[in-house]
Amino acid sequence: MSRADLAENTCTVARAIELFGDAWMLMILRETFLGNRRFDDLQRQTGASPHLLSRRLKRLQDIGVLRREAYSEHPARYDYLLTAMGRDLWPVIISIKSWGDKWLGEGPHSINIQHKSCGHVVVPQMTCPACHKSMEAYDAQASLSEEFELERDAIRSPA
Amino acid sequence: MSRADLAENTCTVARAIELFGDAWMLMILRETFLGNRRFDDLQRQTGASPHLLSRRLKRLQDIGVLRREAYSEHPARYDYLLTAMGRDLWPVIISIKSWGDKWLGEGPHSINIQHKSCGHVVVPQMTCPACHKSMEAYDAQASLSEEFELERDAIRSPA
Repeated sequence: MSRADLAENTCTVARAIELFGDAWMLMILRETFLGNRRFDDLQRQTGASPHLLSRRLKRLQDIGVLRREAYSEHPARYDYLLTAMGRDLWPVIISIKSWGDKWLGEGPHSINIQHKSCGHVVVPQMTCPACHKSMEAYDAQASLSEEFELERDAIRSPA
Repeated sequence: MSRADLAENTCTVARAIELFGDAWMLMILRETFLGNRRFDDLQRQTGASPHLLSRRLKRLQDIGVLRREAYSEHPARYDYLLTAMGRDLWPVIISIKSWGDKWLGEGPHSINIQHKSCGHVVVPQMTCPACHKSMEAYDAQASLSEEFELERDAIRSPA
């Protein structure tokens, strides 16, 4: 299986990984969540080459995560803005941040998050919406859909 | 800047992205969270080639996310197990899953998550630990550490 085959997977985790399992895609997302929206700024702060950045921005627009909006006509210049689909990736970047702060960080956090509606500076937590307790791996039992289970069985014992 | 330079970044998001911004690393993590721990099973279910899988498993052990434990001596065979550091990546995979279910999924979710301690099948949510409300991008204000701000300024206007 090549990486592109992940897109054909039943599993939505695999399909999302095929889209975002790439350092530059994730770095561009970090930047857009920090409020960066212009090509030159994105290029400088991610460290991506212009060619690489162009390709990733195109991909993010094709997926529907970013949209562009002209801010100048001559020359043509664009703001790259998160769509609703893109803003929903915030928990992905925040989870990566929390892990990084805990396991790679020394001293003050490089980014702090304030919850606007309550005013507190917080480390957002993954929580169970039924009982409102924080959730971790040991607390979670995964079960697979019939289709995904069948797909995995077929991989385990090819016909 | 090359991708390796991300490891030198002040920002813990960039440094974590340098480690995990890779489809195969994330696929291996998906599998280990599904309970898969053996080389052959990991290889089949991720679709990675044996060579590629070996390298990623080595990397995951070097980072400290996986540890291996022999289950057979002749021939030497190992279980690959998540460490505490590895289990802390659960919110990353769960966030990717939630996004995938919402934006790529059709029909029943490929993976369902039951919260063991309360018994409910749930979609875990990113929540503010201060006010216990769910948090989203528009609700969050990021502020940067002085060191990270200075690093970004220097990139913006190189001396």
